[in-house]
Amino acid sequence: MNKSTRRRVNRGVERRRDRTQLGLLKIPFRQLQNPLAPLETLSAEQVEQIHEASMHILENIGLRWLDVEALNLWEQAGAKVDRSQQHVWLDRALVLELVAQAPPTFTWRARNPERNLLVGENAINFMPTAGPVYATNRNIGRRPGIAEDYANLQKLTQMCNSLHSAGLGLVELHDVPVSVRHLWRQMMGYTLTDKANWAYLHGRQMCEDHLNMAKLVFGDDLTTGGPVTGGVVNVNSPLVYDKRMSGGLITMARAGQFVIVTPFVLAGAMSPVTLAAAAAQQNAEALAGLALTQLVRPGAPVVYGAFLTNVDMKSGGPSFGSPEGAVAIGIGAQMARRYSLPHRGSGALTSSNITDVQAAVESAWTLWPTVLAHTNLILHAAGWLESGLAVSYEKFIIDVENLAMMHQFLQGIEVSETTLALDSIAEIGPGGHHFGTLHTQSRFETAFYTPFLAERRNYGAWQEAGSFDMVQRAHTLWQQLLEQYQPPPLDISIQEALEDYVNRRGGELATVDLYGDG
Amino acid sequence: MNKSTRRRVNRGVERRRDRTQLGLLKIPFRQLQNPLAPLETLSAEQVEQIHEASMHILENIGLRWLDVEALNLWEQAGAKVDRSQQHVWLDRALVLELVAQAPPTFTWRARNPERNLLVGENAINFMPTAGPVYATNRNIGRRPGIAEDYANLQKLTQMCNSLHSAGLGLVELHDVPVSVRHLWRQMMGYTLTDKANWAYLHGRQMCEDHLNMAKLVFGDDLTTGGPVTGGVVNVNSPLVYDKRMSGGLITMARAGQFVIVTPFVLAGAMSPVTLAAAAAQQNAEALAGLALTQLVRPGAPVVYGAFLTNVDMKSGGPSFGSPEGAVAIGIGAQMARRYSLPHRGSGALTSSNITDVQAAVESAWTLWPTVLAHTNLILHAAGWLESGLAVSYEKFIIDVENLAMMHQFLQGIEVSETTLALDSIAEIGPGGHHFGTLHTQSRFETAFYTPFLAERRNYGAWQEAGSFDMVQRAHTLWQQLLEQYQPPPLDISIQEALEDYVNRRGGELATVDLYGDG
Repeated sequence: MNKSTRRRVNRGVERRRDRTQLGLLKIPFRQLQNPLAPLETLSAEQVEQIHEASMHILENIGLRWLDVEALNLWEQAGAKVDRSQQHVWLDRALVLELVAQAPPTFTWRARNPERNLLVGENAINFMPTAGPVYATNRNIGRRPGIAEDYANLQKLTQMCNSLHSAGLGLVELHDVPVSVRHLWRQMMGYTLTDKANWAYLHGRQMCEDHLNMAKLVFGDDLTTGGPVTGGVVNVNSPLVYDKRMSGGLITMARAGQFVIVTPFVLAGAMSPVTLAAAAAQQNAEALAGLALTQLVRPGAPVVYGAFLTNVDMKSGGPSFGSPEGAVAIGIGAQMARRYSLPHRGSGALTSSNITDVQAAVESAWTLWPTVLAHTNLILHAAGWLESGLAVSYEKFIIDVENLAMMHQFLQGIEVSETTLALDSIAEIGPGGHHFGTLHTQSRFETAFYTPFLAERRNYGAWQEAGSFDMVQRAHTLWQQLLEQYQPPPLDISIQEALEDYVNRRGGELATVDLYGDG
Repeated sequence: MNKSTRRRVNRGVERRRDRTQLGLLKIPFRQLQNPLAPLETLSAEQVEQIHEASMHILENIGLRWLDVEALNLWEQAGAKVDRSQQHVWLDRALVLELVAQAPPTFTWRARNPERNLLVGENAINFMPTAGPVYATNRNIGRRPGIAEDYANLQKLTQMCNSLHSAGLGLVELHDVPVSVRHLWRQMMGYTLTDKANWAYLHGRQMCEDHLNMAKLVFGDDLTTGGPVTGGVVNVNSPLVYDKRMSGGLITMARAGQFVIVTPFVLAGAMSPVTLAAAAAQQNAEALAGLALTQLVRPGAPVVYGAFLTNVDMKSGGPSFGSPEGAVAIGIGAQMARRYSLPHRGSGALTSSNITDVQAAVESAWTLWPTVLAHTNLILHAAGWLESGLAVSYEKFIIDVENLAMMHQFLQGIEVSETTLALDSIAEIGPGGHHFGTLHTQSRFETAFYTPFLAERRNYGAWQEAGSFDMVQRAHTLWQQLLEQYQPPPLDISIQEALEDYVNRRGGELATVDLYGDG
C-alpha cells in the first residue's frame, strides 16, 4: 500500500473534523468478564456421551488429512496412518494427552498494550464479522466489497469499544489482486487500529507473511507474554483437514501464535441431522486439530471453535439464529470446558438478506446464548448479514449497540448501604417522586447505559424528529463516525517498514501461486 | 354483546374458508418447562441484602393503603395502622408468616381442560400484551383500538399455540362504553378462545362480574382443581395501594382466584435511581400485597410480579429492553424464588414506536433474560409496542415466532445411540455428504424447527420472491390466519347465558359508577 492509497483509504478523516463527541465514543475499552453461571444446554451425562462418541469417531472412523507434514507428524506420534488414503486414526490416549498440554488461557497481545486481551476462563471478547463477499449500506447498495469498505469497517472497529479486536476479512477486497489481499488486510489491521490483530491462516506462505509483518510491529519475539496474531483453521466437515488449513495450523502453532480450530458443521449436510451426532463429530474434528497443534509445539495457544447449526430443510441453506443453533452454542462451550480450553463462537448471525427485524431476531438468537455460554472469542459479533455473504454498515452499528448493552448487563449491580438508599426511600415516602432527589440527581449522568441508537422518545416527539427507524439512525451514525476517525499513533519507522514489506512482497507474489504449497 | 355484534366480530371467518394449512397452525399446544439452570443476576448474599432492606422498608417506612377494608384487615392482624394517614407498618414476622402460606404452584384452569396451565416451579407460560390504547397494522395505520381489533387479536391468540393463555386487555375498546368494556373483554375471552382466561382487577364491582361470568362457564365451584381466573394488581409505586387495586385484590383472593401482585417501578422516578434500592422497594411492595391475599384467604393462589426497569434519563420515559431492565428481570425472579412463589415477568417489551429493528432488539433484551430467569407467567410476550401504548398486529406475529423458537430451544436434545448415529457417520466417512442418508431423510420433516416467518432463501431467490422483509411477511400472515379462524366449540347454553349476562349488566351499569366502591 503506497501513500496515495493510504490517503484514499483515510480520506474520510480529511473531509471534516467535527469533534462533536458522539455518545458511542464515550464508551471506554475494557476487558469484559462474565460473572454469571454459564448456560448449559447439555446435562453432565450428555457431555460424557458426546465425548465418548467422539472418541469412537477418532479411533474407529478417523479423518482424512490432505497434508504430508501433518501425516508425518501423526505417524511419528504413533498414530495409525494410511498414507495412500491420507487417512489417520487417533487413539483417545494420544489425543487427550496432547489436548491437555494446551493452555486454558492466554494473552493475545495488541500493538497497544492497553488493548491486550485475555482469552479463556470467563473473559469475553467481541470481534467483528469476517469473510463476507458483499458490502452493503444505504449509500452504495449491495456490491462486491472493495478496499475502501475494508478500511471503513476497520476504522469503525477501532472506534467502537464494545469490539475488542481488530477486524479481519471484514469484506473481500475485489479491487486488490488476490495474491496481495492478505498483505493489505494486515497493513490495515496494524495501521488503522491498535487493537489485537489476527489473520487468515490460508496456508504456509500466507502465514509466513503474517509472521514477518508481526515482527516488524512487535520485534522478533512473538511469543513472550502471549501470541500477537493467530486465526481460524476450518475443518472441511465431515472429517477432512485440507492442505491449506493444515499448513496454516502447523505454521502458526510452530511460531507460538494462536489457532482457533473450527469445524463448520451444518447438521443434515456435513453431519447427520441429529444435533447429538453433529456435536460428537464436531468434537472429534476439533480435538484432532487441537491435538496436532500440541504435537507441533506443546503449549501452543489454541481455542476450541464451534460453528454448528442446522441446515434449512426447505432451502438446503444454513439456518443462522435457529433454536437448534442456540442449543448447539451451549454444547460447543460445554465441550470446550470439558477439556479446559478457551472457546470460540459467533455473535450476530442471521440468514436474513437485509438489516430487518429478522436480522435482529436471529442475531439475538446467536448473541444471547453465546454470551451466556461463556464463549471467550465471539467472532462475527458485528455486521454479519445474509448468512455471512455480506457485511452491512448499518447492521454493524446496530450490533455494536447490542454489544455495548451486553457490556453494561455483565457489570451486574452493586448492593450496598449507599445503593440501597433507605434514607432516600424514607425521605420521599409513599406516593412521592424520586426524580428530583439528591440521590438520583447526583447519579443522573452515569446511572444507566445511555443508548446511542435506541429511541425512547414518545410517538409524537419521535415523529417530530423525523420518524427515523433504527436502520436509518445507524446509517447516519456510521457516517458521522467515519468523519471523526483519527488513526491511532504508530511509529513512523514501523509504518514505513510495513509499507516496504507490502510493496516488496507484492512484487514477488505477482508471479507466485500463493496456495501452491498449502 | 348481541348476535349482530358477534357476527361483526367474526366476519373474517365468513369471508373465506381457505383451509390451506399454515405452518404456524401445525404447532401443538403444550405446557412448557424450562430444564435449564435459572439465570441469576444477584449473588446469594445480594439476595439477602435486598431482603433485609425490604424488611426495613415494611417495618420502618411502611405503605399507604387507601382502602378501608384493607386497613381493617391489617389492624385485625396486629399490624401498626395509622387510620387517619391510611398508613400501615408491617413487621417481618407477620409478612413472612403470611407469604409462607401461599402455594408454590397452582393450576390455572381453562374452559378446555387440555389448556390448563401449571403456574410455578419450572413451568413457563407466554401471554399476549395487555393494556395498549392504540392498535397498529399496515392496513389501518395507528389508531385508537376498537372491539374489532380486540377480537382479531384474541383470535390470533387462540390460533398461535406458542401463546398459552387467552388475551386480556389486548387493546382498549374505544367503540364500547367504558362501563361495559370489561364485560366485552370477558365475553371475547370465553368465546373466541378456549385458553385460560383472566381479567382486569379494577375494583370490587368489576371483579364480581368476572366471578359471575366465570361461574356461567365453570359452574359455581371456581376453586377445586385451581383458580379459573385472576389478574394483575399494580402497586402505585412508591409504596401506595389504592382503593381500586385493593378492592380487586381482596375480592379475587377471597374467591380463591389468583392475584399477580406487580409493583411498576421505574428506577429514578418511582424509586431511587439505583437498582438495588428499586429492587428492595419492589420486594417490599410485592410482599405487602401478597401477604394481604393470605390474610384474606390463607392458601390463595398468588404470583410475585416484577416490572422494574430504569427511567430514560434523557426523555424521562421508561426504558424497555435496557441492560438494567435485563438485570432487574433476573433480580425479580430470584426474589420470588427466595419466597418459593411463582414469578411474573414480561416477554417482549420495547420503547420503539414502530415494529423495526429496535423493537426486535429490545424485545430480545426482555425475552431472553425473562425465559432464562424461569419466569412462570410471561405477560406482554406478543404485540407490545411503543412502551405499551400500542399493540402491533405485525409485531404480534413476529413475537409469536420468537416464542415458538423458545419452545423448541427449551426441548433440549436427545443424546442416545440412535441420535449419535455413529453408523451413519462411519458410512459417509470423511468428505461425504449426509443430506441423502437414510438417517437424515427419515428425520427430514421433523428434525428442526420450521420457521413460518424467517426467510432462509439466498439473496437471489428472496429477491425473485418479492424482497419482502419480516414485517411485510408478518402482515400477510396475520391476515391469512384471521381468514382461517374458527371459534373453539362452546356449549350453546353457556354462550347464551354469557350473552344474557352481558346484556343485562350492560343495562344496569349504564347508571353505575363502576369504580365507585373500589
